[in-house]
Order: sequence, then structure tokens, then C-alpha cells
Amino acid sequence: MDKINIAEKLSLFNDYWNPRIIATLNGQYVKLVKFKGEFVWHKHDNEDEMFFVIKGLFKMEFCDKTIEINENEFLVVPKGVEHRPVADNEVSVMLFEPNTTLNTGNTKGELTKENLEEI
Amino acid sequence: MDKINIAEKLSLFNDYWNPRIIATLNGQYVKLVKFKGEFVWHKHDNEDEMFFVIKGLFKMEFCDKTIEINENEFLVVPKGVEHRPVADNEVSVMLFEPNTTLNTGNTKGELTKENLEEI
Repeated sequence: MDKINIAEKLSLFNDYWNPRIIATLNGQYVKLVKFKGEFVWHKHDNEDEMFFVIKGLFKMEFCDKTIEINENEFLVVPKGVEHRPVADNEVSVMLFEPNTTLNTGNTKGELTKENLEEI
Repeated sequence: MDKINIAEKLSLFNDYWNPRIIATLNGQYVKLVKFKGEFVWHKHDNEDEMFFVIKGLFKMEFCDKTIEINENEFLVVPKGVEHRPVADNEVSVMLFEPNTTLNTGNTKGELTKENLEEI
């Protein structure tokens, strides 16, 4: 058991849309990810997903609205809700979600990441 | 569904050791709490507990060591591990834990808070 420094973990990778696991608790993962550009539309049938902005900002698009999330703000996307993150500039995000969550949810494809790296 | 601004939520209360619920997901709560002074020694038999420092710093005491946690750092205290948070000055902390978690764990007393407020 040791503390985790977010900035230090963020310095370990530079690619986008590729979440890393930084902690595990109660069957949940804490992950860090960097976004830039447009992700794919998707949903998670069984998992709520929390996006906490560490640095920068991004927009979460839904079918009926868009929410901009800034530093020290977070959004919980409930299970079953279609969403798409879009970042005009690089943004660093902390995710909290069950360890069963796949990044692209029901939309498997090029951007899907399985067997995430633990850092 | 709407985003949550941490600073705005922190401005809503000023008492210590009294966690507020700010979000629910996957059977877990996200809480905010302000610490100042010494808490009670306790453990949680069934829940891991995550402490993310938003503003300030505090020390987590264990039977064999003490870990100082600063801004943008976090610590996961595994279930069953005795611990005591101590803050020389006010610190704002985000907690991530199952919705069954009691703040004082196995040490019920004056500082125990049940039926937490949602803000």
C-alpha cells in the first residue's frame, strides 16, 4: 500500500484513448486516460462510468445534449446511455468504473483496448 | 444527469469529519469531506476506501507507518487495515467507497455519521 501521485502517473504515457489502471478497490478500477479528438459513440449496458477531469477540458456528447467538463469537475454517465467524448485539445481524465468496463462499450473496433496496462 | 463541480460542492459545508454524498455509481458513493484534527482509529471489515486530496494535505496513520497525502494524490486503504487520518490544517478530501461504508468503521462513537446528506 502506497499513495499514488496523479501527475507522476500521467507522465508515464502520451497516447490517447488508451486507459491505464492505477488502482483497484471494491471490484472497481481507477484509471487514467488522455483524450484528444473524437471517440466513438457507445454505451455500457451494465456499468456506470465516472469521468473526472484532472487537466484540460472536454465535451461529452449525448443524443440530446452536450456537457462540457472542466478541471475539477466530473460527470457520471449512467449505464445504457449512449455517449461520445470529444476533446479539441489534450485532456487528462481519471475514470472510476467496474473492472468489467470496456472502453468502447458495445462498439468494439479499432479503438477498443483490452488487457489494460497497470502503471 | 449533470456535471459536478467539486469547488461548488465544497462551498456548501464547513464542518469536519462529516462526509457528504455527491454522486452514486455502481453501488459506490463519491463523497466529499473536510478533515481537521485527529480522527479515531478504525477499520472497515468489508470495504476498501479511497482518499483523494482535493485541497491541502493530511497524514494517514497505520500501526507501522504514516503516509502523507498531498493535493492530487490518493491512497487506497484496503479492507481490514486499521487507520487514522490526522490533519494539522483543514484538508478537503474526495472519498470513493461502497455505499455500505460507515465513516468510523468498527469504532462507533461520537464521530460516527449515519444517513449522510446528499448535496
